[in-house]
Amino acid sequence: MNVAALHRVPVDHPADTGGLLGAIKDGLDPDRAVAVIGKTEGNGCVNDFTRGMAATAWQAALAAPVVTVMSGGTEGVLSPHVVVVAETDDDADQPPGALVVAAGRTAPVAPEELGRREQADAVAATVRRICRTHQLAPEDVHFALVKCPLLTSDVIAARPTGTLITADTYDSMAHSRGASALGVAHALGEISDAELDAGLAGDRRVFSSVASTSAGVEVDGCEIVLLGHSPRARGRLRAIHTVMVDAIDARSVQKALDTIASAGGRLVQLFAKAEADPAGRVRGRRHTMLTDSDVQATRHARAAVGGLLAGLTGEPAIYVSGGAEHQGPPGGGPVTLVWELPDGAAQMR
Amino acid sequence: MNVAALHRVPVDHPADTGGLLGAIKDGLDPDRAVAVIGKTEGNGCVNDFTRGMAATAWQAALAAPVVTVMSGGTEGVLSPHVVVVAETDDDADQPPGALVVAAGRTAPVAPEELGRREQADAVAATVRRICRTHQLAPEDVHFALVKCPLLTSDVIAARPTGTLITADTYDSMAHSRGASALGVAHALGEISDAELDAGLAGDRRVFSSVASTSAGVEVDGCEIVLLGHSPRARGRLRAIHTVMVDAIDARSVQKALDTIASAGGRLVQLFAKAEADPAGRVRGRRHTMLTDSDVQATRHARAAVGGLLAGLTGEPAIYVSGGAEHQGPPGGGPVTLVWELPDGAAQMR
Amino acid sequence: MNVAALHRVPVDHPADTGGLLGAIKDGLDPDRAVAVIGKTEGNGCVNDFTRGMAATAWQAALAAPVVTVMSGGTEGVLSPHVVVVAETDDDADQPPGALVVAAGRTAPVAPEELGRREQADAVAATVRRICRTHQLAPEDVHFALVKCPLLTSDVIAARPTGTLITADTYDSMAHSRGASALGVAHALGEISDAELDAGLAGDRRVFSSVASTSAGVEVDGCEIVLLGHSPRARGRLRAIHTVMVDAIDARSVQKALDTIASAGGRLVQLFAKAEADPAGRVRGRRHTMLTDSDVQATRHARAAVGGLLAGLTGEPAIYVSGGAEHQGPPGGGPVTLVWELPDGAAQMR
Amino acid sequence: MNVAALHRVPVDHPADTGGLLGAIKDGLDPDRAVAVIGKTEGNGCVNDFTRGMAATAWQAALAAPVVTVMSGGTEGVLSPHVVVVAETDDDADQPPGALVVAAGRTAPVAPEELGRREQADAVAATVRRICRTHQLAPEDVHFALVKCPLLTSDVIAARPTGTLITADTYDSMAHSRGASALGVAHALGEISDAELDAGLAGDRRVFSSVASTSAGVEVDGCEIVLLGHSPRARGRLRAIHTVMVDAIDARSVQKALDTIASAGGRLVQLFAKAEADPAGRVRGRRHTMLTDSDVQATRHARAAVGGLLAGLTGEPAIYVSGGAEHQGPPGGGPVTLVWELPDGAAQMR
Repeated sequence: MNVAALHRVPVDHPADTGGLLGAIKDGLDPDRAVAVIGKTEGNGCVNDFTRGMAATAWQAALAAPVVTVMSGGTEGVLSPHVVVVAETDDDADQPPGALVVAAGRTAPVAPEELGRREQADAVAATVRRICRTHQLAPEDVHFALVKCPLLTSDVIAARPTGTLITADTYDSMAHSRGASALGVAHALGEISDAELDAGLAGDRRVFSSVASTSAGVEVDGCEIVLLGHSPRARGRLRAIHTVMVDAIDARSVQKALDTIASAGGRLVQLFAKAEADPAGRVRGRRHTMLTDSDVQATRHARAAVGGLLAGLTGEPAIYVSGGAEHQGPPGGGPVTLVWELPDGAAQMR
Repeated sequence: MNVAALHRVPVDHPADTGGLLGAIKDGLDPDRAVAVIGKTEGNGCVNDFTRGMAATAWQAALAAPVVTVMSGGTEGVLSPHVVVVAETDDDADQPPGALVVAAGRTAPVAPEELGRREQADAVAATVRRICRTHQLAPEDVHFALVKCPLLTSDVIAARPTGTLITADTYDSMAHSRGASALGVAHALGEISDAELDAGLAGDRRVFSSVASTSAGVEVDGCEIVLLGHSPRARGRLRAIHTVMVDAIDARSVQKALDTIASAGGRLVQLFAKAEADPAGRVRGRRHTMLTDSDVQATRHARAAVGGLLAGLTGEPAIYVSGGAEHQGPPGGGPVTLVWELPDGAAQMR
Repeated sequence: MNVAALHRVPVDHPADTGGLLGAIKDGLDPDRAVAVIGKTEGNGCVNDFTRGMAATAWQAALAAPVVTVMSGGTEGVLSPHVVVVAETDDDADQPPGALVVAAGRTAPVAPEELGRREQADAVAATVRRICRTHQLAPEDVHFALVKCPLLTSDVIAARPTGTLITADTYDSMAHSRGASALGVAHALGEISDAELDAGLAGDRRVFSSVASTSAGVEVDGCEIVLLGHSPRARGRLRAIHTVMVDAIDARSVQKALDTIASAGGRLVQLFAKAEADPAGRVRGRRHTMLTDSDVQATRHARAAVGGLLAGLTGEPAIYVSGGAEHQGPPGGGPVTLVWELPDGAAQMR
Repeated sequence: MNVAALHRVPVDHPADTGGLLGAIKDGLDPDRAVAVIGKTEGNGCVNDFTRGMAATAWQAALAAPVVTVMSGGTEGVLSPHVVVVAETDDDADQPPGALVVAAGRTAPVAPEELGRREQADAVAATVRRICRTHQLAPEDVHFALVKCPLLTSDVIAARPTGTLITADTYDSMAHSRGASALGVAHALGEISDAELDAGLAGDRRVFSSVASTSAGVEVDGCEIVLLGHSPRARGRLRAIHTVMVDAIDARSVQKALDTIASAGGRLVQLFAKAEADPAGRVRGRRHTMLTDSDVQATRHARAAVGGLLAGLTGEPAIYVSGGAEHQGPPGGGPVTLVWELPDGAAQMR
């Protein structure tokens, strides 16, 4: 059974995997690791080498091939860390409906397909296949992590003008993230076929509430990791997701935290996407993130949303990532909270 | 009677005073303005010219001489704005205990006195005098804004080595802010004589919970504005202050907001000081604000704390300022919330 | 007679016009000022308020309406300063062929025309008209300064999608600068009609060797200032122009400086345009200006080219401006050097 | 015989050692490598991880233990690259007086010694010993590379207040670089004993003309590499050094280049140190490098001086490093040019 275990490892520098030992002592079986999801301390933009440093170090530290998503940028109070997601044993003492982890990958996405219906469909088909294989109901999926490809300068230079969705590497990352998120949304029944097309055409109001997508040069297809509840799995982890409607939407997150608290639960990790509102305003007030030529807007957004979420949860080592195309509404973003039932939860049921 | 009125004016650019007309329509008497407290969109550091632009524009727009504190840096969701603090008429229909505003200034602070006991004593004496003059009890003061001088390169160059507290202009701003805050704390009974000296000697655990101090090249003495409750004043504004013990201390601010909410009140403005924890950690987690050579730590801190406070209040046009020496504990900061009684408050009493 | 005089005024801060008095003592007649061309110390990008501060201050200081081009960014050794270009009297003691200044402006450029043939044609027609009016031969023009409009967010929002050349304000500045430069090139016979169209279509190999164009929100048409030699004017100023083929092309500039030196002349001012090579390489070596998400490429380019030109000339208060679309070849830029004949020049002839 | 060979390897990213193969084909014997001196594309400040990435990669690629100095910051036109300095065979066909390389290291520098006379003396003693061992006359040394330790936060925290020269990690790097440079200067007879003490006491007018020092966390003693001429060595490499008196001192470098050119030589590599003039002016003109809170002064300085030196040499892949304490005069820096005799040089003699 693919019951999920999450192990958070603080890191002292980008290549630090020293905390792995502690995670193993806490029960992590490194051979069953499925994904590594980390925050590194670079700028999270083009010349951020900390992501690669961390990915290389963790892939070497973990023998098994794992989906590796390193998100650059620990602005403000955010703290560099890595979460290892692994499979663990079914715990017969715990109630069913536990969190499970399931992964898969699409075939390589051709450059011409990137950012287009083909990529979205490939992601959607893979999400559906993972759900089917693991008997995971779409509505039980609370987090869909996608690592997707981008267009490199070499690829762009080698193609005839106009055949690709963009001739800009940085821009291709946004298109790839967006198409991946829309594929997730379609597979999970969040959006219709028409909405998928509208989203691909640029309608930012079309979004997924559980997708968290990142583009990276090291993959040629889309790698997907799902976290969801399975009635057949027994364990203490659970997840809940919500959507921040804007960058200061404390209410939605507080409500999720209240749900966890009322169950006597303990927050294990929070995964969020954040972005500067593209309209230049938050609750009608002008923000200056998009006009600051000294600090990238994504850095501003991570700092602000990270400050809010760390404040609400009391935990700075959370995952707040930029680049939220079609992940939550414009200026907002999806938030998934993984939590643990209290010790005596099994008995309570 | 010096009953206080606060008028918040969003600005479209640093020199924008166009919103003044709206404030006047809302009841502001520009001839009775006492202070202008704003957030401008520069970097809040050395080469931030937006503070000067805003100060010049507002001083021209308001005929009366006012204490002008422009704080640079609207990182993240923070929104550029100005709050005009003015005197208004006593409102006999309202309950007593209303917020009053009172201002004063010290004699010029000699360069040799800056950052030292002399400056702290001068500030303390002036705070005491203002309180006495306006029959304001120390414990009724909830906000003490100080605009204090700094050491310019010219002044530093003209003095013998070792006679000044520092030979660095930027550093002199921190010393001036710190001494001013300690002076406030001493005058209001927050700290003892020994603690004042310890604070001046570098003990960051000694602090004021209501001081908000800013250094500027345009003053040679310290300008002080107090907001506090007077039993003799009738009006609808009130203030409450708290201290964030660290940059993610949502609890303390939420408690203050709950107090306002339980009284049926409406938040008018929030004034906070923020800083990167000098120990490099928040709740035991490593932060990277102090090691980021691309973005100043003060910018990170404002973005993060601004995101949290905007989230808790729902308002991005709040005052979150950096440079919190002896204003709240290390890594934390004081927060003052000005709020308005509900319409029927008078009747309820 | 519109004989040109150039007065360089170092500035202590963006709004500093204190040096104007010295320039007047040196012979500047402020009533005959035609243009103010300055370097200010902001980041030269979107949120650079120093340009506006300087423009406002100098327009107030000079009664006459002048073409004002403030270029942000004094990276590296570059020094903030302003050059006032004014008309002066014909000096009968000096040889003919002196530098003259002549200005004009186009009709407002409609948003739909910006960046397109219409804008280029309007600039070209105005350049031709100025030349004709002032009997200036195209080949005698050594500097063509253009201040051109941009598309604001409001304008973009108000137009149907697809009617404008771009929906991005920052991008519109590049298009406006490029079309203006191509218009200059066409008027002065540097490029053919077909080349003009190719340039507008994106061919960066089509360029002017004397244009220096800047986009600003404060104009709705294009303001043009030409510096050139007139056989009918007597005076001691001369100009020479060259083109840097890349960002480290010291040779071309040294050659121009040698020409001045061999005539016993003295450099008065240097005007250059600089940019990061869009191909990511300089002389076959990879540069990192375009992948640095912490510092804008334009800042890198000004610092590097400014360092080289200040080194060659021994003068940091020179005009090195970014945004060199169709001004010199890709990665290079035009350079104009204004110089003064030696005292005894008249006698030598 | 320790005849020196220099192999320049352009790199595509910080960990790229792919060019090593080409260097080996060009004659590099990796087993005889003595030093690796590189420029990496990080910010060259505190959070620059590219130096460590490059150092790790090159130390792994080269089996032999080598002195590794990676200098962060390729601002402007500077191009990331590595120079491998190796020993090569004496070439009997070439004239004597060839460039030789010799290395050594001091004992560990205790924290209390760092930045003080003890460190300077240790460096001086080691330089003298290297010279003696390799029969290298002090006046024949043209480049003295020192990799020196710094004070980490842990070390600072563990020592009683006041026992170390500074309680700031970043500041300790400057002290270590300065003491190392002064040690070199003393050993090579550039400065007297009294000048050494004056330099350690802060007199920036005391400096070495050949030292290039870098502080790094990975060493506990000082590693030293000397390049100098030996009458006993035969080969085609030579070196010449000069001092830039300020950041735009093209003349001194041009003179060195002219010397090389007049000998028919070819520049192999240039090593320079650069800094923002601490007085805030270059040739009497105000610069803004020290007041720019968005971009570190060291980045400005490297960009500007790199632009000048790349322009003069026609080569962007040169070594321009920041942090020039006691390396050249304030605002200036030492420059060493390694060059190669023309093919027929032996015959010409």
